[in-house]
Amino acid sequence: MREVAVVGVGMTQFGMSEKTQVEMFSEAAMDAITESNIEPRDIQALFLGNGLGDFEEGQMNMAPMCAAEIGIPNIPATRFEGACASATVAMRNAYLWVASGFYDIVLTGGTEKAMAMGTPMATRTFAMGSDSRYEGFAGITFPGAFGMAAHLYSKKYGIPLQKLKEQMAMVAVKNHKNGVLNPKAQFRKEITVEKVLSGIVIADPLQLLDCCPFSDGAAALVFASVDKAKELTKKPIYIAGVGQGSAGPLYTQKDFTRIRARETAVKQSYMQAGVGPKDIDICELHDCFTIAEILATEGLGFFDFGKGSQAVEEGKTSLNGEIPINPSGGLKAKGHPIGATGAAQAYEIVKQLREECGERQVKGAKIGMIDTLGGDLATVCNMILRR
Amino acid sequence: MREVAVVGVGMTQFGMSEKTQVEMFSEAAMDAITESNIEPRDIQALFLGNGLGDFEEGQMNMAPMCAAEIGIPNIPATRFEGACASATVAMRNAYLWVASGFYDIVLTGGTEKAMAMGTPMATRTFAMGSDSRYEGFAGITFPGAFGMAAHLYSKKYGIPLQKLKEQMAMVAVKNHKNGVLNPKAQFRKEITVEKVLSGIVIADPLQLLDCCPFSDGAAALVFASVDKAKELTKKPIYIAGVGQGSAGPLYTQKDFTRIRARETAVKQSYMQAGVGPKDIDICELHDCFTIAEILATEGLGFFDFGKGSQAVEEGKTSLNGEIPINPSGGLKAKGHPIGATGAAQAYEIVKQLREECGERQVKGAKIGMIDTLGGDLATVCNMILRR
Repeated sequence: MREVAVVGVGMTQFGMSEKTQVEMFSEAAMDAITESNIEPRDIQALFLGNGLGDFEEGQMNMAPMCAAEIGIPNIPATRFEGACASATVAMRNAYLWVASGFYDIVLTGGTEKAMAMGTPMATRTFAMGSDSRYEGFAGITFPGAFGMAAHLYSKKYGIPLQKLKEQMAMVAVKNHKNGVLNPKAQFRKEITVEKVLSGIVIADPLQLLDCCPFSDGAAALVFASVDKAKELTKKPIYIAGVGQGSAGPLYTQKDFTRIRARETAVKQSYMQAGVGPKDIDICELHDCFTIAEILATEGLGFFDFGKGSQAVEEGKTSLNGEIPINPSGGLKAKGHPIGATGAAQAYEIVKQLREECGERQVKGAKIGMIDTLGGDLATVCNMILRR
Repeated sequence: MREVAVVGVGMTQFGMSEKTQVEMFSEAAMDAITESNIEPRDIQALFLGNGLGDFEEGQMNMAPMCAAEIGIPNIPATRFEGACASATVAMRNAYLWVASGFYDIVLTGGTEKAMAMGTPMATRTFAMGSDSRYEGFAGITFPGAFGMAAHLYSKKYGIPLQKLKEQMAMVAVKNHKNGVLNPKAQFRKEITVEKVLSGIVIADPLQLLDCCPFSDGAAALVFASVDKAKELTKKPIYIAGVGQGSAGPLYTQKDFTRIRARETAVKQSYMQAGVGPKDIDICELHDCFTIAEILATEGLGFFDFGKGSQAVEEGKTSLNGEIPINPSGGLKAKGHPIGATGAAQAYEIVKQLREECGERQVKGAKIGMIDTLGGDLATVCNMILRR
């Protein structure tokens, strides 16, 4: 297997868009292609993440349409769906097709129009990422599952619920603060712990500002073999490791303060990259709810289990902390266009490792990580990137 | 890249099912696993095709649920969606993960519950495989597109429409005849040219029996590296070549009697396998409509362009003809559970190459091919298998 590098990235503004999913992806892709110093015709295959194009726009089989839109209609174009992890799963496969020597240059990323359909319909349809047989109909959709996880966390680690709610609020405050510095973020407004704690309850103890929004958006990356990458750019960002894990329905999971799929996935990423959590300088992870960020920082090994909420309070995950988490603003502030999210996480890490992030730049970051969760804790896919 | 072989296959009865998509896949998978002389725990990853689980059962992110159902909840489990070609696209990726040396044993296949939702809803939702921006709303859904292709074929090659309708009817008659010999087929009843020609018109000149049905069903295959395969089975069936191509919206296609995505895909398959159309002993291809089978036999190179309809009339594609097409009964008689179709095609070819097909066995078949079309001629994926 040969080394693979990211040679170009692109991303739309996140938020509400007038464009179709195909058009948004095309916009992000053309930016990534331009940055890569290639022409569309140099791309040999497309690997696309998309969650619910059928419900959103009456469109299945979206990948060939995206390829056609950027002028390369004949290349193999494949759609991946792993709920919110769709793009990361697509990127992991794109990585392999290049690493194996089959292709030299591929396009990957994701697109989604989740905001334009309106929150009630988006909530209802994206709940299909939960298990429809055993969970969704009983209200164990995503806010429900993470609300339960927060209660379990409080009880298991002896952290009073009110204390935990404040620490969770600090996740939201931090990510909004980062979002202010990101011109592509959906929310660019600081919030306070008090504001989070006075919000309406969504799924106890989660309140409105503990939850990420639905968003429209797309992000794209060009991957190239190491030799091609060195020809194309002075700043190749290498893919050092990839991992993917799954888990069965929630009722089969003993303790979902520990997300089994993540622990399976991250072992693979660390082993392949030959690094451990202490080596990671910066991370974009799946803060669909504030508690989800806390659980992820523990699952990835940055903090001991039960210490993640305290770490937030101590500022360890802030932009200038020991391991900056979600410098982009995360799903919480940057936005969460489901099928594009993993690609947008990778966009941020690539930009950070290239030192192109302006005010939100984490100085000297050399190794970065992305981690994306899909469904009812059912899919986690992650990727380690390095300069 | 190392060689990859199919070591076990499984398939449900096609038709109406009381089971969920996850349960159907699990049934097919357990048969494939048993036949492979492995345990579920030996499987390292799952690659699943599924078209519209969200519309059919309110279920997205179905792959990890399928893995959990067969007792291996933690493995990377990925869903692929390429409309009717979903399973073939999944198999192509499964192939690469083994060929590249990343995994030794993987599970692949597809599942769909297209019949249980009823024909009107299935027609309406699967039309989302057409381009929603330019085609679907104008009635250019699949019957419309293939109806136009039949008219174009008649005009381009100077075959009177009534003559072509009779030749198309002969495709249906042949595939129903084959279906009678397949215990897993949805329709096991012979029909006549007269019966086809007296059917209601669906999209002129296509009549009811020119069209395949919607079906429920699943099919699964276990792929292994060549060394593992030789340990596990005395009858490994090797994957000799894979190919995938795409095409833009129909209005960008000059002549859709020639399906561009197929011509792109099949060049890859033949080149990798080091064979040509004359070497193929048997083929399962995408007869969603009778005219689609005729176009596919030409696109794959079995007959000259414009000669495919005559070849049917001359019996060249019959079970005892020079290149038996759709010995299983094809989509037309065996049934078409969208996301499972490619896997069921591969199931048939593997069984044929192992000489396990009883009355419908094509004697001495050594090299077989599958070809699956997805969307509005937008995706074609194929695979060449050999003893």
